[in-house]
Amino acid sequence: MGVVVSLDKARDSGPGLKPLFDLVESDMGRLNDLILSKAHSHVEMIPKLARHLINSGGKRLRPILTIASAQMCGYDTGDDHIPLAAAVEFMHTATLLHDDVVDESDMRRGRTTARILWGNEASVLVGDYLLGQAFKMQVDVGIMDALSILANAAAIIAEGEVMQLAAAKNMETTEDEYLTIIQSKTAALFAAACELGAVVADKSERERAALRSYGNNLGLAFQLVDDALDYSGSSELLGKNVGDDFHEGKITLPIVLSYRRGSADEQKFWKRTLAKGNVRDGDLEHAAELMKKHNALEYTIKRAKHYGNIAKDAMAIFPDSKHKSALLETIDFCVSRKH
Amino acid sequence: MGVVVSLDKARDSGPGLKPLFDLVESDMGRLNDLILSKAHSHVEMIPKLARHLINSGGKRLRPILTIASAQMCGYDTGDDHIPLAAAVEFMHTATLLHDDVVDESDMRRGRTTARILWGNEASVLVGDYLLGQAFKMQVDVGIMDALSILANAAAIIAEGEVMQLAAAKNMETTEDEYLTIIQSKTAALFAAACELGAVVADKSERERAALRSYGNNLGLAFQLVDDALDYSGSSELLGKNVGDDFHEGKITLPIVLSYRRGSADEQKFWKRTLAKGNVRDGDLEHAAELMKKHNALEYTIKRAKHYGNIAKDAMAIFPDSKHKSALLETIDFCVSRKH
Repeated sequence: MGVVVSLDKARDSGPGLKPLFDLVESDMGRLNDLILSKAHSHVEMIPKLARHLINSGGKRLRPILTIASAQMCGYDTGDDHIPLAAAVEFMHTATLLHDDVVDESDMRRGRTTARILWGNEASVLVGDYLLGQAFKMQVDVGIMDALSILANAAAIIAEGEVMQLAAAKNMETTEDEYLTIIQSKTAALFAAACELGAVVADKSERERAALRSYGNNLGLAFQLVDDALDYSGSSELLGKNVGDDFHEGKITLPIVLSYRRGSADEQKFWKRTLAKGNVRDGDLEHAAELMKKHNALEYTIKRAKHYGNIAKDAMAIFPDSKHKSALLETIDFCVSRKH
Repeated sequence: MGVVVSLDKARDSGPGLKPLFDLVESDMGRLNDLILSKAHSHVEMIPKLARHLINSGGKRLRPILTIASAQMCGYDTGDDHIPLAAAVEFMHTATLLHDDVVDESDMRRGRTTARILWGNEASVLVGDYLLGQAFKMQVDVGIMDALSILANAAAIIAEGEVMQLAAAKNMETTEDEYLTIIQSKTAALFAAACELGAVVADKSERERAALRSYGNNLGLAFQLVDDALDYSGSSELLGKNVGDDFHEGKITLPIVLSYRRGSADEQKFWKRTLAKGNVRDGDLEHAAELMKKHNALEYTIKRAKHYGNIAKDAMAIFPDSKHKSALLETIDFCVSRKH
């Protein structure tokens, strides 16, 4: 299915992630090598399944944020930022593996999901293995503050996933509840990834808090745009089907807004399709029409911009640098991205 | 279903776990309080599901081993053994939650499994949450060697679970391969639980290695007996159905032995029932007959005794004490237990 709601006019993509990628380029080889070597195991199924997802063309945005944050903070006394970044990516990969099982997803990043190829069981267990490896890499680095940040993130992410599961198909979910969910399931790891850069560079709580706030708000913006793209992107660019959230009955902000702003008849439609999962031909198109009518996607993107602005302001304490500019460009990319 | 193969004559239960439980009694209140408080979350589904399993009458054998080992090593300078023991129990609980999803189990400890009551999705995610909480408790204690031991155990346990999955329904699994699997999925956490007692008491590598070896071999014995009980126990005592492993096509030592020692016709039977999962009425009884014919369960228990003896010898470096006696009695219990 192609574009359901067009949002292109409202958003300009700018230079994208290129400035960020250029800055971390010299570290990326080592990061990728470490990620591949730690996804290894003598148990054949583990590297096969792990690498399917690890090599599937993800942007590695979270570990890159750790590396760029460390560089911006002037870290040059060692290589600890690399294993910490790899640990962040493994925690993310483990979450994706478990997510796909929970959501019964068939596609991820344009490829058949691991659970379809190797089964739900293997996806659960290899996710556990990657969590274990992430934990080991952090212990090897041995910075207690970094361990504490990532341990907290691990518990919060799982809490957010359970909240999302409990909210699934619940039309009475409020915008606040939705924000609490994405704060936990997405923003917490972005916040941790960025704060680690300040921690590894031994910066004070002031810089740590600034990078934590940057990452947190960037993560909120990222997830809001993700939720809008599920109704407005192109399947080809997204690497998954447009409307997946709709078919899974996932309550995201575009839905929360359309439902609350809708007439009694419209609310009946949302209850039938999302709460009861009774979806017929043409329902996704009708959902898109209702979102258009209530400006639900524009409002979702507007919200994303709001959090993007908070992320920008959080960075104000840092002196100007190529790294700071690249991190600011990253906010614009996350808000304006089309995939 | 009742007892399939009787093994009672061969084994005497002795004083059981009472000496061990008596010694740790004063710490058990705090352990249980901590376990319950860390299973808490403002997300309602988490404590509900976690406590279903945590309060289901498990023996808490692994955390008790941590506490008893710490006491035997003379630890009296703090309370760090309690959160470390709780972390061990949470890692175990998380594994059980994920295991039940992987094995599609309906019963655990005599109760309907969490995945039946709340769904596979919730079991996966609450398992992740408990892993995160385990990780947080270890970080709060802040002993890097303890973190290292448990991080290693986490990765090895997951590796063992994947190995078991890959070996499922594979009749060509050798006894060595089977031992590698139970070494990883069961013995590694027993070893970690016991070694933590020496670590928290700041003992040298000599004591650490001794307790690691004790735990490791106790874990092997424990799992071997578990696998024999699946064909010889009573459902009422086990809290799960006799023959569960058979119906899941799980290749355990009694199967490995019966298959290897069996005639061509018998091998055909095992292939049909286990590899192909084509199980008819009376097959479990026939499987039990074949095990009896080849002394597969007796041999499995004999193996367990072998590892139990290694565990006993590992303890020889410690001076006599009530704790040492209780830990030695625990070996006898694990080898002779009927549930």
